[in-house]
Amino acid sequence: MPRTMKAAVFVEPGRIQLQEKPIPEVGPLDALLRITTTTICGTDVHILKGEYPVAKGLTIGHEPVGVIERLGSAVQGYREGQRVIAGAITPSGHSNACLCGFCAQDGAGTKHGWKPIGGWKFGNTIDGCQAEYVRVPDAMANLAPVPDGLTDEQVLMCPDIMSTGFGGAESGAIRIGDAVAVFAQGPIGLCATVGARLMGATTIIAVERVPERMAVAKRLGADHVVDFTQEDPVEAIRRITDGRGVDVAIEALGTQATFEACLRVLRPGGTLSSLGVYSGDLRIPLDAFAAGLGDHRIVTTLCPGGKERMRRLMEVIASGRADLRPLVTHRFRLDQIEEAYDLFSHQRDGVLKVAITP
Amino acid sequence: MPRTMKAAVFVEPGRIQLQEKPIPEVGPLDALLRITTTTICGTDVHILKGEYPVAKGLTIGHEPVGVIERLGSAVQGYREGQRVIAGAITPSGHSNACLCGFCAQDGAGTKHGWKPIGGWKFGNTIDGCQAEYVRVPDAMANLAPVPDGLTDEQVLMCPDIMSTGFGGAESGAIRIGDAVAVFAQGPIGLCATVGARLMGATTIIAVERVPERMAVAKRLGADHVVDFTQEDPVEAIRRITDGRGVDVAIEALGTQATFEACLRVLRPGGTLSSLGVYSGDLRIPLDAFAAGLGDHRIVTTLCPGGKERMRRLMEVIASGRADLRPLVTHRFRLDQIEEAYDLFSHQRDGVLKVAITP
Amino acid sequence: MPRTMKAAVFVEPGRIQLQEKPIPEVGPLDALLRITTTTICGTDVHILKGEYPVAKGLTIGHEPVGVIERLGSAVQGYREGQRVIAGAITPSGHSNACLCGFCAQDGAGTKHGWKPIGGWKFGNTIDGCQAEYVRVPDAMANLAPVPDGLTDEQVLMCPDIMSTGFGGAESGAIRIGDAVAVFAQGPIGLCATVGARLMGATTIIAVERVPERMAVAKRLGADHVVDFTQEDPVEAIRRITDGRGVDVAIEALGTQATFEACLRVLRPGGTLSSLGVYSGDLRIPLDAFAAGLGDHRIVTTLCPGGKERMRRLMEVIASGRADLRPLVTHRFRLDQIEEAYDLFSHQRDGVLKVAITP
Amino acid sequence: MPRTMKAAVFVEPGRIQLQEKPIPEVGPLDALLRITTTTICGTDVHILKGEYPVAKGLTIGHEPVGVIERLGSAVQGYREGQRVIAGAITPSGHSNACLCGFCAQDGAGTKHGWKPIGGWKFGNTIDGCQAEYVRVPDAMANLAPVPDGLTDEQVLMCPDIMSTGFGGAESGAIRIGDAVAVFAQGPIGLCATVGARLMGATTIIAVERVPERMAVAKRLGADHVVDFTQEDPVEAIRRITDGRGVDVAIEALGTQATFEACLRVLRPGGTLSSLGVYSGDLRIPLDAFAAGLGDHRIVTTLCPGGKERMRRLMEVIASGRADLRPLVTHRFRLDQIEEAYDLFSHQRDGVLKVAITP
Repeated sequence: MPRTMKAAVFVEPGRIQLQEKPIPEVGPLDALLRITTTTICGTDVHILKGEYPVAKGLTIGHEPVGVIERLGSAVQGYREGQRVIAGAITPSGHSNACLCGFCAQDGAGTKHGWKPIGGWKFGNTIDGCQAEYVRVPDAMANLAPVPDGLTDEQVLMCPDIMSTGFGGAESGAIRIGDAVAVFAQGPIGLCATVGARLMGATTIIAVERVPERMAVAKRLGADHVVDFTQEDPVEAIRRITDGRGVDVAIEALGTQATFEACLRVLRPGGTLSSLGVYSGDLRIPLDAFAAGLGDHRIVTTLCPGGKERMRRLMEVIASGRADLRPLVTHRFRLDQIEEAYDLFSHQRDGVLKVAITP
Repeated sequence: MPRTMKAAVFVEPGRIQLQEKPIPEVGPLDALLRITTTTICGTDVHILKGEYPVAKGLTIGHEPVGVIERLGSAVQGYREGQRVIAGAITPSGHSNACLCGFCAQDGAGTKHGWKPIGGWKFGNTIDGCQAEYVRVPDAMANLAPVPDGLTDEQVLMCPDIMSTGFGGAESGAIRIGDAVAVFAQGPIGLCATVGARLMGATTIIAVERVPERMAVAKRLGADHVVDFTQEDPVEAIRRITDGRGVDVAIEALGTQATFEACLRVLRPGGTLSSLGVYSGDLRIPLDAFAAGLGDHRIVTTLCPGGKERMRRLMEVIASGRADLRPLVTHRFRLDQIEEAYDLFSHQRDGVLKVAITP
Repeated sequence: MPRTMKAAVFVEPGRIQLQEKPIPEVGPLDALLRITTTTICGTDVHILKGEYPVAKGLTIGHEPVGVIERLGSAVQGYREGQRVIAGAITPSGHSNACLCGFCAQDGAGTKHGWKPIGGWKFGNTIDGCQAEYVRVPDAMANLAPVPDGLTDEQVLMCPDIMSTGFGGAESGAIRIGDAVAVFAQGPIGLCATVGARLMGATTIIAVERVPERMAVAKRLGADHVVDFTQEDPVEAIRRITDGRGVDVAIEALGTQATFEACLRVLRPGGTLSSLGVYSGDLRIPLDAFAAGLGDHRIVTTLCPGGKERMRRLMEVIASGRADLRPLVTHRFRLDQIEEAYDLFSHQRDGVLKVAITP
Repeated sequence: MPRTMKAAVFVEPGRIQLQEKPIPEVGPLDALLRITTTTICGTDVHILKGEYPVAKGLTIGHEPVGVIERLGSAVQGYREGQRVIAGAITPSGHSNACLCGFCAQDGAGTKHGWKPIGGWKFGNTIDGCQAEYVRVPDAMANLAPVPDGLTDEQVLMCPDIMSTGFGGAESGAIRIGDAVAVFAQGPIGLCATVGARLMGATTIIAVERVPERMAVAKRLGADHVVDFTQEDPVEAIRRITDGRGVDVAIEALGTQATFEACLRVLRPGGTLSSLGVYSGDLRIPLDAFAAGLGDHRIVTTLCPGGKERMRRLMEVIASGRADLRPLVTHRFRLDQIEEAYDLFSHQRDGVLKVAITP
């Protein structure tokens, strides 16, 4: 086995570069994966642009599909050569946050092991997986074997996009017969649409403007697609729901406009399920919030991780309930990753997600 | 029986006046109550000041304790002369909102019977109970007999203050062992403190500055009382919780400052339970919200009503689990109500709540 | 309008007969429906056989589709001539049971208005709807307008079968990715299968032996159908789930054998959702229950009713998410109802449900 | 440090004996505790009698209070000499069961890491803590530092009795204003009574016959104590609740009689929360179960474990909300443990729990 590998590294704002780095060492609880397929996330673009700060020299990427190359001395229940995925969020399983059900808020360094977003480690606080190899911490909590018969691309959305989008539907506690609006049909919004459909929503209204995304939304389960450049989405949703509003509105973009529109389309007692990564303060308009008296709920969800989550998501794929392959619109080799970033960050050529193969 | 009665009527902004009005007629589903005790709410002061608009000539007040004087032709299960209360919110029981569990958002006039805050009728959309008599709509859903042995003043907080304050604790889903902060210790905040205590919170931090209210907060169950004029409450709460933050923060004032402080003291995955009636747009600071990635929840609660809610709250009083009599600091006759408004709206003389007896 | 009507009446055990009866009077809260389509339920067969006792002379039937013929004096929000359904369970909306969310356990006559199964009135405690007309109590809580474009037969399953079957899936709190077993694929079991599918279960295992029912189960969403006369269903389910067991097992028959098998196929922490109407004591085997230490849950559900429930179920039909027309296998006129009972009670000719039209 | 220690070992049915054994080795994820206080559980008596089978030679006991003597090579976040407790149930944190919230059903050896009761290891599948030292597996998920100022005896109930009893109240989802019955007031039933009180139940009815236990029940929060040798408890509870029944009934003994009585006192829609360890099949009487139509729920709970649970329970003690010292009625040195077993297993001298100090 070689000593070094290729990895996409954050150099400085505006620059992610493929570099040669040492292959990671594994500690007793870790595993080393040889990456077979990975992808780029919108968050990686924020990192690229310097909007989300990470350490210079860090390997980027948090969506690994790969093969176990080496196991830490204390890791049991796996074997080398096994094909696995790990979630974008890699909970330890043993923190106070994990043990009370907030795996994504796992962390270390504070007295009680609580730190916002502490569960997101890959490409954030430790080296990520846009590389030939990645070290997975707390392997026993995180490695999920891929069922035979599923290709890398079929499970490539599980680590982040699917887990996050479905999480938005789940945190909204969608019920059979609900009306649901999903604002923005990028990869996460599309997965939220699929999640809403899987949970039994009977009126799903997707809001988007890019024709390719509108088409995929329809194909993946939206009953109505509103082009917000043609019609005020709040009015359109009021009309479609016969003045009633929606039970759940899912925000999947991260802007004031969509956050606010979500509030405005909710029925009294409805839930705004927020998935977006915001870049500024948010404003809650008094009227949309019924002055605080509307029994509204606003819930936020960070991508759920851990091997059990991954197992369940792969079950969804294996059962044929959802097919997310339409999201993979482009394919690159790892040594083309700078080109992939260029395409993806400029949303050229109808790109939704790219598959990167070392 | 007389034909007319005395009633506190909204005349114009700045002026609520005792007037002579006809005693209400009862429809088939209604009941007529002879009021024996009632009180003034902070919301009534908003009405007085013209900040919350109601029709001129409307009788104000939504916290009735009284005796059944007459029953509508279709009302069963009660008898005249029975001592009862009704909630501030009077759900019909048969609206779509009620039938899916949002009784407070009950209403009429829209296609599906949903209208924000539609369940609040007394002193808002129909004549209220600061009067000698009040008509209670949908009597069978709303009249709750007062257990023998409880005085009017013992149950006077049930219709609104106690139901709302407890509702804040319940919507926060407080669990045994939680740390809870309650911002503002007016009547609703004090009841939220009591509710948090009853649900098993083990660290209850009340934030206030009025010495009398701080003292009552201590007496009713707060473990710590932070005077926000002496110490930054966010820092104080971080210190008290050993850097961990609270599981649930309850907003009981209705201002940007308290709303924002609630967010800042939450642990990741924590819940902001909002009770305040806001008078302007709210701002969610990006950092306090972990950019939308902290698994935070913001929930709002309008005072739960209906006879089963009232029955339960009176059980709390009857069992001795809570004694809210310390909240009644002043007493007036109905014909002194303008004086009572003057005292209450200026928060003079350490007033918390007043009892008004016709 | 005539004074009398035809109605299927319980005469004595073994005999339900079409008789001439007065058309019901309506009280202030009632509505009179002219029945356009109705059906026969397994419970009606229990009544026919004398296994479930009802008063002699009672009109049977609890699944009405019809047209509003007359409205009580206090009923608002409807108009005569409107096409509606009502649930098999007709909650008042104003009982303590309703107001704390247990509409099906509504009732009267006890101090607090709680009585098991008190919400089931049609064809149980008041005249039912296998007749030309039926009186609907508490009309405002129960009448649900049928959306244009849906036929009687499309919504005929909503009042009972669909509400009950879906209720089993909902009470089981099925989540995306769950494995679910449904024991028995009669009309209720089939609807439970559909409900499980709608909520996102990814492995649905139906247990049955009647070939026609097995075929419909496959068509409506079961991934696996186990013929329990060919293979032990507990072993089959263990095999299909790779030794893991199911997250939720739904009992839809009402026997010891199926109840016990449900327990035996549950994973630790799994939920047995029971829909069956049992006719004898049940036994919980010690080993299947892990001596009480398996974090198992057993939940029971009586058919949820009320107009909001009916509205939601009709949304499911209108959206095309479920098509339950395959359940209607036979059609009869009301004057053929004795023949219909004969066919249905002997489960001849592959019957699932019959449509009866006056 | 010595090489051997004293430990209470299961020799054969009827015989637990203090023996000299090697002090355990620690693996990378383990910790070695020096026990300072422990206790005997009812389950240990089942083991003693041979009713619950364990391996011969196993050290018994699952309720450790102690000091960290040594830490495994991969354990971080603790230091030697720290005073800690661990729960009776020691979840790994990284199993599929743990990661979907069923820590107590953790396990190994099956394909997906699910095995009923697999989380209970101490004194069941690995050596326990009635010894001078104990090896704690998965130390990072299980060691909870004891707050300064709390004595060993104050936290001695946390690992099992308190966690289990409180768990019964929590799984029952007790709400403010509930009526709750607790059948049997042994140590677990007493803790369930305390839990019910902490969660806001306003009518708590304890059923017992031993005068000392009845007295402690009163002292710890029961509103009514029914002596079932003097009065039929089902009738007594119906009377106390005015015919309404209880919202939640907690079974804390493990017999058919108490299980059945729990069902009989439930209101429709009520919850039976079962804590008992049963020793035979259970029977559900048809009438008590409303033939499966009463919207009843039966939930079971195995003692929740893990360090976050222990932290919360110690918070309850530290805050003064509960004082469980009255449960420790007798004290023994470890070398008197056979005598302690004799007293405890025969329930002599009003014993509730014993404290054992090496």
